[in-house]
Amino acid sequence: MTSDRLRRQLDFILEIDKAKQVLRQSLLTADRRHENDAEHAWHMAVMALLLEEYGPSGLDLARVLKMILVHDLVEIDAGDAYVYDDAARAAQAERERAAADRIFALLPSDQGRGLRALWEEFESLEARFAGALDRLQPLLLNFYTDGAAWRAHGIAKSQVLERNASIGDGVPELWMHAQALIEEAVRRGDLGV
Amino acid sequence: MTSDRLRRQLDFILEIDKAKQVLRQSLLTADRRHENDAEHAWHMAVMALLLEEYGPSGLDLARVLKMILVHDLVEIDAGDAYVYDDAARAAQAERERAAADRIFALLPSDQGRGLRALWEEFESLEARFAGALDRLQPLLLNFYTDGAAWRAHGIAKSQVLERNASIGDGVPELWMHAQALIEEAVRRGDLGV
Repeated sequence: MTSDRLRRQLDFILEIDKAKQVLRQSLLTADRRHENDAEHAWHMAVMALLLEEYGPSGLDLARVLKMILVHDLVEIDAGDAYVYDDAARAAQAERERAAADRIFALLPSDQGRGLRALWEEFESLEARFAGALDRLQPLLLNFYTDGAAWRAHGIAKSQVLERNASIGDGVPELWMHAQALIEEAVRRGDLGV
Repeated sequence: MTSDRLRRQLDFILEIDKAKQVLRQSLLTADRRHENDAEHAWHMAVMALLLEEYGPSGLDLARVLKMILVHDLVEIDAGDAYVYDDAARAAQAERERAAADRIFALLPSDQGRGLRALWEEFESLEARFAGALDRLQPLLLNFYTDGAAWRAHGIAKSQVLERNASIGDGVPELWMHAQALIEEAVRRGDLGV
């Protein structure tokens, strides 16, 4: 006999299958199709376990991984807002709150509250580290697809620097590398001045 | 100046972008396209953090998540062998070892050795829990796509029971639920007797 608790957990597990349909602006390096949210979260999570040593001391890796794995679930309802589209991002916050209300409520209430709190967290060591990887992962894909998403949207270097500077708050060494990639992308003509 | 260590880590991060191209037999519930390895690993990882309470006490969740996140990377070279295809699975073991030799060697040697050891691990609490979720996740997708992959390959109930019984070693309560789904799939005609 399956308990009501397990049933709610399985309903949630089934619901989040839809994250594999939420497309982002980043293109994959191999076939240049658009990446989806599940792929992005997986890639970020592997980055977190590999790059933990560049994060602040005292980082709780399990917490970082949980945060990363669920951070875009609200986009199942709210969709992805491109990081350089300011108008879309302003409207996005409200849609994401409504999405969080619906999606996390599918879970048993203790778990739903826990994951929602993790999703709302911005200030902890773990959130800053996860946030840095959330910026770095698309920047890497952009760099290694000849700036495909930047080109498609006419993005300039100043926008990329401004939007990604927070990588430096989370992980200074990675921000130094990211800045070198941005300079190289400009030299190659993949990113406007 | 980017260190040689960071450069190797980033090369690996770029290489594993290819996992998003490795297709599995499972179909997604929304549009019934084939799932890829990155999506599967992400889905399993979220399942692990939600279903941890059904695992054995003393489980190290960060270790489970790491194991899940990297467990299929060797398929970038070796491809996915369908769980019910015995001939393919026999040849697969050798290809996967060769793939592990190449892929984990991209990393700084301490990290490469660590991840390879995690990939080779079968007996720990964490490996049994991760292994159970590796079976349960496709079983759920199969059940909720009207047995699409089972139908495509003419799979019978006895094969599903045999191949998935190890869910019971890792997580008995989940195996009880899985058996109920298998019975229901037979009743619906989605799985042969």
